[in-house]
Amino acid sequence: MPRVRITRRLHFCAAHRLAREDWSEEENRRVFGDCANPNWHGHNYDLEVTVAGPVDPETGYVMDLGALKALVNRLVVDELDHSNLNLDVPWLDGIIPSTENLAVAIWERIVGHIPGPAALDKVVLWETPRQWAEYRGE
Amino acid sequence: MPRVRITRRLHFCAAHRLAREDWSEEENRRVFGDCANPNWHGHNYDLEVTVAGPVDPETGYVMDLGALKALVNRLVVDELDHSNLNLDVPWLDGIIPSTENLAVAIWERIVGHIPGPAALDKVVLWETPRQWAEYRGE
Amino acid sequence: MPRVRITRRLHFCAAHRLAREDWSEEENRRVFGDCANPNWHGHNYDLEVTVAGPVDPETGYVMDLGALKALVNRLVVDELDHSNLNLDVPWLDGIIPSTENLAVAIWERIVGHIPGPAALDKVVLWETPRQWAEYRGE
Amino acid sequence: MPRVRITRRLHFCAAHRLAREDWSEEENRRVFGDCANPNWHGHNYDLEVTVAGPVDPETGYVMDLGALKALVNRLVVDELDHSNLNLDVPWLDGIIPSTENLAVAIWERIVGHIPGPAALDKVVLWETPRQWAEYRGE
Amino acid sequence: MPRVRITRRLHFCAAHRLAREDWSEEENRRVFGDCANPNWHGHNYDLEVTVAGPVDPETGYVMDLGALKALVNRLVVDELDHSNLNLDVPWLDGIIPSTENLAVAIWERIVGHIPGPAALDKVVLWETPRQWAEYRGE
Amino acid sequence: MPRVRITRRLHFCAAHRLAREDWSEEENRRVFGDCANPNWHGHNYDLEVTVAGPVDPETGYVMDLGALKALVNRLVVDELDHSNLNLDVPWLDGIIPSTENLAVAIWERIVGHIPGPAALDKVVLWETPRQWAEYRGE
Repeated sequence: MPRVRITRRLHFCAAHRLAREDWSEEENRRVFGDCANPNWHGHNYDLEVTVAGPVDPETGYVMDLGALKALVNRLVVDELDHSNLNLDVPWLDGIIPSTENLAVAIWERIVGHIPGPAALDKVVLWETPRQWAEYRGE
Repeated sequence: MPRVRITRRLHFCAAHRLAREDWSEEENRRVFGDCANPNWHGHNYDLEVTVAGPVDPETGYVMDLGALKALVNRLVVDELDHSNLNLDVPWLDGIIPSTENLAVAIWERIVGHIPGPAALDKVVLWETPRQWAEYRGE
Repeated sequence: MPRVRITRRLHFCAAHRLAREDWSEEENRRVFGDCANPNWHGHNYDLEVTVAGPVDPETGYVMDLGALKALVNRLVVDELDHSNLNLDVPWLDGIIPSTENLAVAIWERIVGHIPGPAALDKVVLWETPRQWAEYRGE
Repeated sequence: MPRVRITRRLHFCAAHRLAREDWSEEENRRVFGDCANPNWHGHNYDLEVTVAGPVDPETGYVMDLGALKALVNRLVVDELDHSNLNLDVPWLDGIIPSTENLAVAIWERIVGHIPGPAALDKVVLWETPRQWAEYRGE
Repeated sequence: MPRVRITRRLHFCAAHRLAREDWSEEENRRVFGDCANPNWHGHNYDLEVTVAGPVDPETGYVMDLGALKALVNRLVVDELDHSNLNLDVPWLDGIIPSTENLAVAIWERIVGHIPGPAALDKVVLWETPRQWAEYRGE
Repeated sequence: MPRVRITRRLHFCAAHRLAREDWSEEENRRVFGDCANPNWHGHNYDLEVTVAGPVDPETGYVMDLGALKALVNRLVVDELDHSNLNLDVPWLDGIIPSTENLAVAIWERIVGHIPGPAALDKVVLWETPRQWAEYRGE
């Protein structure tokens, strides 16, 4: 049976800032630049979730993309959309919401919910159309 | 002399919320929905600035697009990028930062600075790739 | 009060063919080319709906874009998505589903439902990223 | 000699439905949802074909991208564009035209035609800008 | 009969430079910046051609978009693609190939060839995804 | 510590031609087609640079994307933008500027400058939105 990767793209809008509470504003500004603005800034995030697995010969599906969309909406997008990533999301508590950390946290949030034999392959999070992070669970 | 419109696209990231201080949280939530989140949310804004005018027969330019880019960066993008549109920008003070109001405020900020005989024609502000506002000074 | 245009982009997938029942297959193939395939073909349509009006000083809105999205989803997208435009849609009955005719039909379907003082300004329908039709009610 | 991947993107428009002939309409609708519409629906498909190999020191090419484009147009795009993927394409006969199955079938159709030492590396098929399938011959 | 605008997008790649032969290199560099590089630079141009007119009730067409594509390919794209806009194109002779001048020249090249009652409405030429010029024959 | 890939997209405009000086114009035209035009042509190139490494637990960064942007701008974009890739760039001397060769040369130019423990993972160079080359240092 051929092994195929399928991807669903979703999006959400959120505010965040990059800063450590144990650092001074000057230290945060020096390391994180404008991203440390204490009054926050925000992004339109694009999120790509890729699942890999054998193609079911009965349906032609690796996994129902509608079910994948519903799963990621419920676990991730509904919780992050129109939120403040530093303040509003329990499962991001204590994490600096860099694109890297967010991609890893989203992977951890989804990975146990993909029905086998398919498995989560990759999470890509776009902070802007010009920069993004990719995590493969490695 | 032919009359041509030239456009420059720029972008900035910012946090905002839609809410009136003279309304209760419930009232704000009822009218503005998730956009009223007191902890803010944010966007990658795309901004298109269009200038119209005759083509200078000596240069082939309506206006130097590099000068237009520098002008809009100085007057608008440098002030809005990585900011909180409700808190950080004096010339947005007292304005609900809806896409409509932002487009009008950006027009007002630029309109007096376009060197004649060219003139500002249009400001388009994209809050997301799926929704935007256009203002022509009418 | 400034007058602003706001736009919401939506999308739907559908099958169609371009052909007249009162013409022979040869005649349809001669005029409409591959678009006359009797077994249908299809597209991912993108739909942009623009509403123009004064900005409400209380809300900063020309019209609530969430309400516009809900309205166009209910009247247009829910009826056209995953449909056959020649067979499945009563309000397209008897219309050759060219991009031009679809744009006009969508305008007629929406135009009476925009709450004043805002008004429908423009419908743009993209058949592919390389060709589209725009109707302004003229 | 460095090993490089080159990709060419092409596109086609087609109708399809997801359904098994040995299932009832109710069963097809339950599993495939709106995609089972008996009157078909359709998509603008984007197809990316990636070839990997050493760079020829004489030409700087892994493979002539114009030749790759012509090859994929002849073997795939000319046969699928403006077609019904369930009815019109002999080499898709008996296959449920899910994005996964189409990606595999396109791989099989091309893989023997890439001139060595280059080799087919990856086929990505986009059903919409929000969902796609990738096959690497595994 | 409703009046609709239809647009076809095409593209071409070309080299050019912005400079006046009657100016010194220093003067050209001062006015046109990097665009004056004597060794040329180049762009992937996107060209949008819009035609406006009544919808033919028999075909649902303002104009056959395939015919429009063929027309613009023959008159414009085939002549500009993979060319040097300063050296290779007789109908651009003596014109500084700014985006503005190119948009006007392309309009002049096409305007007499659109079959009535449709008429050329607009030419938009994108030099990059961030800057473009629009000409409406005014 | 999770291992993440981060990518920054940049762009530049340049002229080039594909041709060997030791071949006749006929031979170059036969092998490279329109790309051999002696008067040059050009492109808007998009460049993606991917860096892989562990996420620094103190900052949440694999590498500061602002620093990556500045590095690639200094080493690559500032040298290639508005240039002639055959004539103006010492580190491309003697290389046929095919997309493949350019991707490899850009990799070589950057690879020694990424601060450990992060490392260069991938360079993708887009000649047009429809064709690109990817190099992973293999």
